[in-house]
Amino acid sequence: MKNIDYQNILNEIEKEIQPFFSQGQVAQYIPALSRVDPYQFGMSITMFDGTTYSVGSSSTLFSIQSISKVFSFTRALKLCGTSLYDRVGKEPSGDPFNSLVQLEYENGIPRNPFINAGAIVVTDALYDKYENKQKAFEGILNFVRSIACDDTITYDEEVFTSELEHKYRNQALCSLMKSFGNIDSEVDDVLEIYFKHCSITMNTQQLSRAMLFLANGGIDPITNKEFVTTQQAKRINALMLTCGHYDASGEFAFHVGLPGKSGVGGGIVAVVPNVMSISVYSPQLNSWGNSLIGTKALELFTTKTGLSVF
Amino acid sequence: MKNIDYQNILNEIEKEIQPFFSQGQVAQYIPALSRVDPYQFGMSITMFDGTTYSVGSSSTLFSIQSISKVFSFTRALKLCGTSLYDRVGKEPSGDPFNSLVQLEYENGIPRNPFINAGAIVVTDALYDKYENKQKAFEGILNFVRSIACDDTITYDEEVFTSELEHKYRNQALCSLMKSFGNIDSEVDDVLEIYFKHCSITMNTQQLSRAMLFLANGGIDPITNKEFVTTQQAKRINALMLTCGHYDASGEFAFHVGLPGKSGVGGGIVAVVPNVMSISVYSPQLNSWGNSLIGTKALELFTTKTGLSVF
Amino acid sequence: MKNIDYQNILNEIEKEIQPFFSQGQVAQYIPALSRVDPYQFGMSITMFDGTTYSVGSSSTLFSIQSISKVFSFTRALKLCGTSLYDRVGKEPSGDPFNSLVQLEYENGIPRNPFINAGAIVVTDALYDKYENKQKAFEGILNFVRSIACDDTITYDEEVFTSELEHKYRNQALCSLMKSFGNIDSEVDDVLEIYFKHCSITMNTQQLSRAMLFLANGGIDPITNKEFVTTQQAKRINALMLTCGHYDASGEFAFHVGLPGKSGVGGGIVAVVPNVMSISVYSPQLNSWGNSLIGTKALELFTTKTGLSVF
Amino acid sequence: MKNIDYQNILNEIEKEIQPFFSQGQVAQYIPALSRVDPYQFGMSITMFDGTTYSVGSSSTLFSIQSISKVFSFTRALKLCGTSLYDRVGKEPSGDPFNSLVQLEYENGIPRNPFINAGAIVVTDALYDKYENKQKAFEGILNFVRSIACDDTITYDEEVFTSELEHKYRNQALCSLMKSFGNIDSEVDDVLEIYFKHCSITMNTQQLSRAMLFLANGGIDPITNKEFVTTQQAKRINALMLTCGHYDASGEFAFHVGLPGKSGVGGGIVAVVPNVMSISVYSPQLNSWGNSLIGTKALELFTTKTGLSVF
Repeated sequence: MKNIDYQNILNEIEKEIQPFFSQGQVAQYIPALSRVDPYQFGMSITMFDGTTYSVGSSSTLFSIQSISKVFSFTRALKLCGTSLYDRVGKEPSGDPFNSLVQLEYENGIPRNPFINAGAIVVTDALYDKYENKQKAFEGILNFVRSIACDDTITYDEEVFTSELEHKYRNQALCSLMKSFGNIDSEVDDVLEIYFKHCSITMNTQQLSRAMLFLANGGIDPITNKEFVTTQQAKRINALMLTCGHYDASGEFAFHVGLPGKSGVGGGIVAVVPNVMSISVYSPQLNSWGNSLIGTKALELFTTKTGLSVF
Repeated sequence: MKNIDYQNILNEIEKEIQPFFSQGQVAQYIPALSRVDPYQFGMSITMFDGTTYSVGSSSTLFSIQSISKVFSFTRALKLCGTSLYDRVGKEPSGDPFNSLVQLEYENGIPRNPFINAGAIVVTDALYDKYENKQKAFEGILNFVRSIACDDTITYDEEVFTSELEHKYRNQALCSLMKSFGNIDSEVDDVLEIYFKHCSITMNTQQLSRAMLFLANGGIDPITNKEFVTTQQAKRINALMLTCGHYDASGEFAFHVGLPGKSGVGGGIVAVVPNVMSISVYSPQLNSWGNSLIGTKALELFTTKTGLSVF
Repeated sequence: MKNIDYQNILNEIEKEIQPFFSQGQVAQYIPALSRVDPYQFGMSITMFDGTTYSVGSSSTLFSIQSISKVFSFTRALKLCGTSLYDRVGKEPSGDPFNSLVQLEYENGIPRNPFINAGAIVVTDALYDKYENKQKAFEGILNFVRSIACDDTITYDEEVFTSELEHKYRNQALCSLMKSFGNIDSEVDDVLEIYFKHCSITMNTQQLSRAMLFLANGGIDPITNKEFVTTQQAKRINALMLTCGHYDASGEFAFHVGLPGKSGVGGGIVAVVPNVMSISVYSPQLNSWGNSLIGTKALELFTTKTGLSVF
Repeated sequence: MKNIDYQNILNEIEKEIQPFFSQGQVAQYIPALSRVDPYQFGMSITMFDGTTYSVGSSSTLFSIQSISKVFSFTRALKLCGTSLYDRVGKEPSGDPFNSLVQLEYENGIPRNPFINAGAIVVTDALYDKYENKQKAFEGILNFVRSIACDDTITYDEEVFTSELEHKYRNQALCSLMKSFGNIDSEVDDVLEIYFKHCSITMNTQQLSRAMLFLANGGIDPITNKEFVTTQQAKRINALMLTCGHYDASGEFAFHVGLPGKSGVGGGIVAVVPNVMSISVYSPQLNSWGNSLIGTKALELFTTKTGLSVF
């Protein structure tokens, strides 16, 4: 793989995705996201030796949204271990990301940590390990900073406030789980931490860097820091491949062929196990709520490089 | 029907229900209800001329719980008219009283006003008509006092507090409906009014008196006050017959054959259209959450008097 | 009630329903039904002394369709007794008449005998009591003839054939129940008997006459023949009131206020307990699959006579 | 990877799986399968140069059951192209393999070709391409023979007959889809072909050989025959990874980390893209209906060789 000219490939991709702009739509459910410039595209990759390649708006900050579910789950897995699986499953859901149906039939245990209910339980489990809300959020934020090696990362107060104002569906999920005894803390407190980590803003350079440890069995190949065990990293990657893209996880597995996670803010992260980590950003979404151009760019990347897992 | 010796019938019923004690169980979901003496039985009927007959603990106060759904719905129908049906349906649900499934599939519109979600929407609609929470609750309480002709009626603070502490399932219902735009006010405010009117305490004499207007097309036959129109009274009675007893409405229709509504506190109200109103109390519940002895007593009553609608 | 001029009331109703023609649509799911003249209306009532009043096309034969569910259930209840309830419930369903969802979640036990799955189980239970398919169908047909006191009643071969050609949804219901062990005989045999009794043709005079025993506690008041016990008659009436009109049973209870059962062929039957039986026919259906004009006519009838159970 | 001693690894695995015998149970739903010796284990791998390694009962024939879904889908994809996706989805289901619920809500379109409903639709699509049932089944069988390079492969008449006798759940699925217009041929004909290809018997040597083309982008690396395009092979592998193991696809992805498909007969097939194909057999199933020892053996294999895709 040494001979691949990654910068050239990224440049090609930037050209080839142009015709697909205007086929999607920026997220509309909160005002703070709906005002984003829809014609943005950025992409970054990070190699094990620290080399990075980027194209487009790779330093533009955006709301990571559901990508934060990977970070909160990783952190919770480290702090809580496999006891976490008593409270959240590890299988694809088949229902929309915010559905209450399965939750009611299955006693308040969400199918996996990458649907909203699952990420809320994970947030509650994390919160149990900290003194208060502020510290719990800082715990997640500091973890993100440490895996990205960047202490400037923070969250967007306006997006956070906007999420809080439209909290009711997630409040329903959290209250239902609490009625089944699967939430320890107060509903509003858990949601506050949850919305805050969804509101973290990063760019593709930071996100790509942050995912590198998951391409290397849990150990950052540059700093040699171990963030999770190899088994845990494998679990996270398996979950990203089977459940990382809501109702379009099968599509993503086929077209891209890499473990990945998307966010409604337009970002996607992915890993090529043993090789590199990737992030792409473009805010127009397809009908499943995943970045339309971002998915296309990743598909072009694995086709051009042959780096799909299949 | 003049020749029926109602007092004698009530006395007979009191004897005949004795063997059925101990087959049920007092409501366990909140401590305040679980501590009630399980061996109580009271029953009252009220005729159009004001004559009343009672037996057993007919002056013992108990938590009316879901019976309050009849009163809040009646009041909302009066204040809001048929526009209320844009927000709540009029058909049996087929699902448990606290299910979120149908609500998710049907855009946050509950099937009928006698399941929890429906009664919460009704409470929200009522709240819209008042300045604040306190006035809204007083509006309902005063309505109950006026139909029962008894200004001493109030609510049980301990039960109310206990309900609030176990609010999460109802909070999930209310939040889910709010996410669909079917709740106007704040979730916690609506739930406070809802739990307060569920915590109203009455005895069978008061409840029987309070239901009399529904046996007479909306007009109290003693005071001649019109509380709702004849059409509205017919609607309420039809709803009680088809949806008044959760998953056992068909059973109740068969065994008792009267429009009625039960509460998890052990009370049941029923009307014999054009003849009388009835209330019975006994806190042991059957597997559907309806008073076991109360249902039996009503069945004996319609069998002995031939007053079933079938 | 002696002084009511029923013939005059029927004549009035015939005039008053005219403006409602063209608001509905004839059943389209099988060609044999879709070709029916949509502008028909007939209505008949039968008193306990045998007096009958009719208006419009009261001698026009039509496909009774789901009305046959009342007859097959009545017959099965007589032959099998309460053991029938091990195989079919007695509560409203809340789901469409042909839904498989509840059936899958509840181990192949249909909610009530008036949804398709329930009527198919009932047909299977009846079939168990006869030597072969032919005799089983004749058993039902002869029962209908005996309650209607009319040996000319038969079924429509064309409708039957048309039903068979569009059998797949009902086959799915029957196969699913058989997979749960709730169907004894072969799926195709049970469906053949089921479709045949749905294809029985009657007019409103015959249907009204046939229902008279249900208005009189199971005993035909004219011939004094007992077809079912008083308890069984009460059960059937309670089921008609709570489950007789698919997803519009609550609406029917409110507007009409009588136990009744509708069929997609445009017929409805109803009883005024202790007073009379009624049938109405008009093939245009409302959005719930019940006769639009028929429902309206019954509403006018109970409003004009005050004979609603509420 | 040249230096791995695969035979030694297989030998190790055979020893290490011994303690896990007796933790599972042989499939009970049809007698023909329930009588199988539960203490069997066989495993085979096939390299691109044709080298094979085997251990245990690798030449014992067993019923391939749901593994046949991979072969029928592959064949249908070749014959029908992407038009197949109008009739069957490509996403995880989240419901049990034989559920009708999603099918009813989603107009008779199954979620993916590896749940029963999906495989039945695929069988119907294949049947459309042949003159009659016999030829359609032979089409599938001959395809299996051609990918396995073995003309002796056939099916087990006893298992087939046993499946037919317990056909009702699958008949319900097929009838329901036909009622939505998603099945062209007669239900019983489609089921006959479906059950017949589920009853094909193979051993792990044959199955491993048969899967080799899917490890090599659709082209058999030994004969150079192209069975499907690279895109189609990628799709099949992505589907196996996300949907190949019913409700335990996520577990399999994590523990094994390879695209694979299991059958209730105790067999599993898997591919290491660009490297090899694998098959394992052991009839005791875990609670999800997948071979308990087989899954364990594959997990040991990817752990020992590092050949997981993650």
